[in-house]
Amino acid sequence: MRTEFDFIRSIKKKYDLKHVGDDCAVLPKDAKTDLVVTADMLVEDVDFRLEWTAAESLGAKSLAVSLSDIAAMGGTPRWAMLSIAVPPALWKRKTFIDDFYEGWFKLARQYRVDLIGGDVSRTSDKLVIDSIVTGETAKGRAVLRSGAEPGDSIFVTGSLGGAAAGLELLKSGRRTTSPAAKKGRLIERQLRPTPRVEAGKYLSVRRWAKAMIDISDGFAADLHHLCDASGVGALIEIDRIPIDENLDGMTADQKLKFALGGGEDFELLFTSDRKVFSQAELPQITRVGEITESARVVEVVRDGRRKFLPPFGYRHF
Amino acid sequence: MRTEFDFIRSIKKKYDLKHVGDDCAVLPKDAKTDLVVTADMLVEDVDFRLEWTAAESLGAKSLAVSLSDIAAMGGTPRWAMLSIAVPPALWKRKTFIDDFYEGWFKLARQYRVDLIGGDVSRTSDKLVIDSIVTGETAKGRAVLRSGAEPGDSIFVTGSLGGAAAGLELLKSGRRTTSPAAKKGRLIERQLRPTPRVEAGKYLSVRRWAKAMIDISDGFAADLHHLCDASGVGALIEIDRIPIDENLDGMTADQKLKFALGGGEDFELLFTSDRKVFSQAELPQITRVGEITESARVVEVVRDGRRKFLPPFGYRHF
Repeated sequence: MRTEFDFIRSIKKKYDLKHVGDDCAVLPKDAKTDLVVTADMLVEDVDFRLEWTAAESLGAKSLAVSLSDIAAMGGTPRWAMLSIAVPPALWKRKTFIDDFYEGWFKLARQYRVDLIGGDVSRTSDKLVIDSIVTGETAKGRAVLRSGAEPGDSIFVTGSLGGAAAGLELLKSGRRTTSPAAKKGRLIERQLRPTPRVEAGKYLSVRRWAKAMIDISDGFAADLHHLCDASGVGALIEIDRIPIDENLDGMTADQKLKFALGGGEDFELLFTSDRKVFSQAELPQITRVGEITESARVVEVVRDGRRKFLPPFGYRHF
Repeated sequence: MRTEFDFIRSIKKKYDLKHVGDDCAVLPKDAKTDLVVTADMLVEDVDFRLEWTAAESLGAKSLAVSLSDIAAMGGTPRWAMLSIAVPPALWKRKTFIDDFYEGWFKLARQYRVDLIGGDVSRTSDKLVIDSIVTGETAKGRAVLRSGAEPGDSIFVTGSLGGAAAGLELLKSGRRTTSPAAKKGRLIERQLRPTPRVEAGKYLSVRRWAKAMIDISDGFAADLHHLCDASGVGALIEIDRIPIDENLDGMTADQKLKFALGGGEDFELLFTSDRKVFSQAELPQITRVGEITESARVVEVVRDGRRKFLPPFGYRHF
């Protein structure tokens, strides 16, 4: 059966779509500015479960996933639209929708994003949310997936694996989001991701990033997307992967499975001519490998041994 | 229970949303141009039924409803995004999704609209579509709902009632969309609306329209929206309402019920200083009444007798 990726690729080819293929589409605005635009659909029981999340967190996450796409282009988020289709039971639970919007607006205020439109509809069954955000970059300065070149260093922001581990905890029945416990922090990481808007903007403004993507499908999958778009390969030093410090009570391989294969960390993955960033320049940046000439060949190296890293995640050595 | 309109009004007030309240949000683009942006969500079994529509027609309608919003601002449509959440059964019926996109693209080509992004997701149950279109107008020339003044003439494009009558036919089990039969033409009107993009653009460029809205909720409801936004009232001459010529085998009152109360005709309702348009200037324009000073009082006059026209439609004399 076709995957969504196959389908989008086929549509892109069939209709010769030039603006599709990055985290955002880039459109000309004026002489100094480009627009970057993204849409993300979140579907109940596919992308979230109502029994796992507070309405406010869901509202915030709906915006956060799109802000992360803007960040991945190096954009400054400006305007948003929010379309929701609400089942009758939720519509009657008056506070749910109000709390959902409250969560959305709290995050929107933090990034100075204006809600300019959208749609409110009903559905017979599952809640569906479509989040649309438009941002701005300086002219020609949007960071694409296609700019990576052999020899570039590969960096990631923050840490990896936490969101996927949090998802596993939710699946196993755990619900606490208390920051006092590691497990609570992992669940919070899944339910309330932080988009790396400042880092993305900085990387664009300083011209430090040549290619960039946000880690939503998982490090391995998104690195493949970046390499495919750039026509390059990558070699990752596995011991450098910044694993979420809250991952606990598991083997090194289990941790790597979450860090390389798990999605929704919403960190930024980018390539650069630079080899290092100081804490003062950009906090919490880790160099994890190097871009190679071998088109679409993504490898990991551990203890001197090389292994292919498939796009769907990490399998142990 | 709160309606969607109540809810949007409450959100608009609570969060002081300045861009919400027209068919599109208006944003500054450059020194000469504004952007007009709209999002419309279509939900299976609320906005459409799969057993009533061909996939291609549904694709075309998904775009048409948003093009109609652009038309209502006097805009030229330019870029679109399309987010869909697809249930497994439809995903497996390979041709459904392909045909849906084919219908979408056929209409998009007609209006030179580029698909620049969107999202493809899965849902457990019902198909959900979010259509986002961005258009352009000359600077400050977007036609709002709020520009109507007492003494303005009120006009509509085309004819009214056909889409709602087509919906009734579909509900009663009829399926033919053959243009050879009146009933087929009514069903086609419901399933494949024509957005009035050229008329809308012309009305903006020539500065003929002072206030405008598209008739999606129904003539009465949308006239109320326009009057509310402008702080004016309206007096409609009932005998002038251009009723769809395919409405057949029913009383005059039944026809008026469809024409005034039925939705989804996607004609344009606008006010103007002018009293008449020639066929050469703008084809198929009908003057149906006049804007009055009585804020939010919408009346119809028939055989010299006046009656309030409630926002939910038409009740016979």
